[in-house]
Amino acid sequence: MISWAWNVAGIVFFVNFVVGILFIFSTMENFSFCSPTEFIFGRGSQEQVGLALASRRATMVMIVYGSDRIRHTGLLDQIESSLTAAGVRFIEYGGIQPNPTAESVYNALPIARDNKVDFILAVGGGSPIDAAKAIALGTLYPGDFWDFYSGKEQPQFALPVGVVLTIPAAGSEGSGNSVITNEETHQKISVRYPNVLRPRFAIMNPELTMTLPWDQTAYGIVDMMAHIFERYFSNTPGTDLVDSYAEAILRNVMDQAYTLRHDPDDYDARANVMWAGTLAHNGICGVGKVEDWSSHRLEHEISAFYHVAHGAGLAVVIPAWMTFCAAKNPDKLWKFAVNVMEVDPTGKEHKEVIDEGISELINFYHDLGLTTRLSELIGETPDIEKMVASLHRNMGDTLGNYVPLSMDDCREIYRLADLPTEE
Amino acid sequence: MISWAWNVAGIVFFVNFVVGILFIFSTMENFSFCSPTEFIFGRGSQEQVGLALASRRATMVMIVYGSDRIRHTGLLDQIESSLTAAGVRFIEYGGIQPNPTAESVYNALPIARDNKVDFILAVGGGSPIDAAKAIALGTLYPGDFWDFYSGKEQPQFALPVGVVLTIPAAGSEGSGNSVITNEETHQKISVRYPNVLRPRFAIMNPELTMTLPWDQTAYGIVDMMAHIFERYFSNTPGTDLVDSYAEAILRNVMDQAYTLRHDPDDYDARANVMWAGTLAHNGICGVGKVEDWSSHRLEHEISAFYHVAHGAGLAVVIPAWMTFCAAKNPDKLWKFAVNVMEVDPTGKEHKEVIDEGISELINFYHDLGLTTRLSELIGETPDIEKMVASLHRNMGDTLGNYVPLSMDDCREIYRLADLPTEE
Repeated sequence: MISWAWNVAGIVFFVNFVVGILFIFSTMENFSFCSPTEFIFGRGSQEQVGLALASRRATMVMIVYGSDRIRHTGLLDQIESSLTAAGVRFIEYGGIQPNPTAESVYNALPIARDNKVDFILAVGGGSPIDAAKAIALGTLYPGDFWDFYSGKEQPQFALPVGVVLTIPAAGSEGSGNSVITNEETHQKISVRYPNVLRPRFAIMNPELTMTLPWDQTAYGIVDMMAHIFERYFSNTPGTDLVDSYAEAILRNVMDQAYTLRHDPDDYDARANVMWAGTLAHNGICGVGKVEDWSSHRLEHEISAFYHVAHGAGLAVVIPAWMTFCAAKNPDKLWKFAVNVMEVDPTGKEHKEVIDEGISELINFYHDLGLTTRLSELIGETPDIEKMVASLHRNMGDTLGNYVPLSMDDCREIYRLADLPTEE
Repeated sequence: MISWAWNVAGIVFFVNFVVGILFIFSTMENFSFCSPTEFIFGRGSQEQVGLALASRRATMVMIVYGSDRIRHTGLLDQIESSLTAAGVRFIEYGGIQPNPTAESVYNALPIARDNKVDFILAVGGGSPIDAAKAIALGTLYPGDFWDFYSGKEQPQFALPVGVVLTIPAAGSEGSGNSVITNEETHQKISVRYPNVLRPRFAIMNPELTMTLPWDQTAYGIVDMMAHIFERYFSNTPGTDLVDSYAEAILRNVMDQAYTLRHDPDDYDARANVMWAGTLAHNGICGVGKVEDWSSHRLEHEISAFYHVAHGAGLAVVIPAWMTFCAAKNPDKLWKFAVNVMEVDPTGKEHKEVIDEGISELINFYHDLGLTTRLSELIGETPDIEKMVASLHRNMGDTLGNYVPLSMDDCREIYRLADLPTEE
């Protein structure tokens, strides 16, 4: 009898010991963080672009941009005058579309090589910046640049990239990320090579964003918030500091969004949103955490097949993803509801608080003028099976970390994303 | 009568016009922000120091440190083994005191030059890091290194500096700042040269801070919070985003402090405090704002004359500075009371809220075991006139921005800092 009791005590001790050891090491993750980009921020800052390039010894610059809007607003002229005054030569490469394609990169590479381009300057938002990064990777590489996106190769170097930002959203001006769509293969692939792809400088004049149409402003706000969500929703314990400033940035972006909805020319609101977009994606909100990029991956299939704006797709995916995760891993969603959506939890069930938080987020998206229903967004009944098959091909059997998602789970999230929502 | 009315209308219109113009341009300040330091963070990270140096082509390193504590804990051995394994040679330069002196810099310079040192590695907290930066400035300069502190010269270059951080407080591991005390002249001078002085890398292992005596932990917490205060208390409008993440960091540091008071070995609390110390001073909490360094300047006189720890001096100065400013510029102090000290403003007068916020901060300092009374800190009646005279000599006629302080105001703040406080 005594020996039996001792055995039990021994087992209990052993289990406690193992749990204790696991607990001790269950802490914030080790990390390395380096954000070497120089952010040159404020009114008139685009006039410094020539100096920013010349001081980095650029001699021949490829200016990568999207539509001719920057020509009509006079921005391109201002930039080119600044380069000329600083003695920096340049060529233009315009026409980059939203969700930039591999084709646009392939077309740029011989031009960059023939002109001995030694610096890429992106002017615009995430699309020209991501294309500029791909061109920077491809110019010095004798093989197929897509190798760096397909995972076949890891880059050791790239041409330096600078940015004049006109659409705050993607956070690409401060990140080492690039997302390129291969239309042949229906793949939208995101890579992260911070050591070679972080821009050397980013010129950020909030005034340049005042003429943005409202929908682009709204998509940008949804996108930058999503960049924080993908880092915030994590099972890594002990990261309260990062979580608390991430929550502060999220709350502030929503405040600025309401200001801009009524006064798109509010300089400070534009400036705060612009800086928030950078902080949302330069990595500072993810230090020490295992991140989760499921919502982005789920969205990439939507924009790859239906050619909708990334931010518009995220407004559809995120509430569905949250609703799905609420049943499986509720704790951080509760914290989100209380600390970000400012739901008062007094006297409420855990689940009630979370549901209210998700509803508040949906209301916020609706207040921005966005739909949160997939079929309404794409204007047809979504082919969920096609998206799941493509997701499976691109990402394998599971997705994400906060709740690891099987392909069945992803199918369910797309289904939830197409339910009508009540306010 | 009509013409008189029109004249008034004209004047009113003109005044409105001018005020309107001022208002339009009264926004966030332009800024340039670049934090190129690589932060290598987490358990065991000191083992990467050799690689961090070798990959930056260091061949002969001067290891600058303070007391022999790092020798006794085995840290110095670990670092030197890592350097040897990476093929990096080194010499030691220890004995840097708290509030590092110009003399310790002068003594190091011929050694650095004779040994052809090409990289300075600081091991410890703010004092060795600030001394390392001064040595980095002085080694390549044929003149007197103090020229860069007295304001006679602006540096164009310096040797590269790396850091192994063991005391989170000064934030010097991520800043371009250095504070050196000239004992001959009783001057404690702070300089900011981000382009040349920001460390190339900072190795931050929270475990190394677990053996810190409590008072050093507490001083560090006071110091990092002060670095945020000096940026937070600003009259620059439109900086809500920065303010909200600054508030989040302040609240979190106080939470972690209470955890560490009871459990100094809590890894995550140590990790959060360590990262907060970096964010508090790498500039990210000050972007777009006119800063105010009055409290630091007022404290520098105390530690220069009475040889007390900088953090201990700040705990005395800050509540007095706040009390003085409350009457002249209350708005941000109200925001601080509500958003940082979490005072419930319901049904309270503006002044009552502010007073409660300051009291809560004083209570927090007392909970850390610190005094907030000057004579108790220095163990004698303070010679306020001597400090004011020195302040005047170092800083001129006025100090700071949030409330510009005359020397009479500074005298009054020192007087307030010596009043007994009630809890």
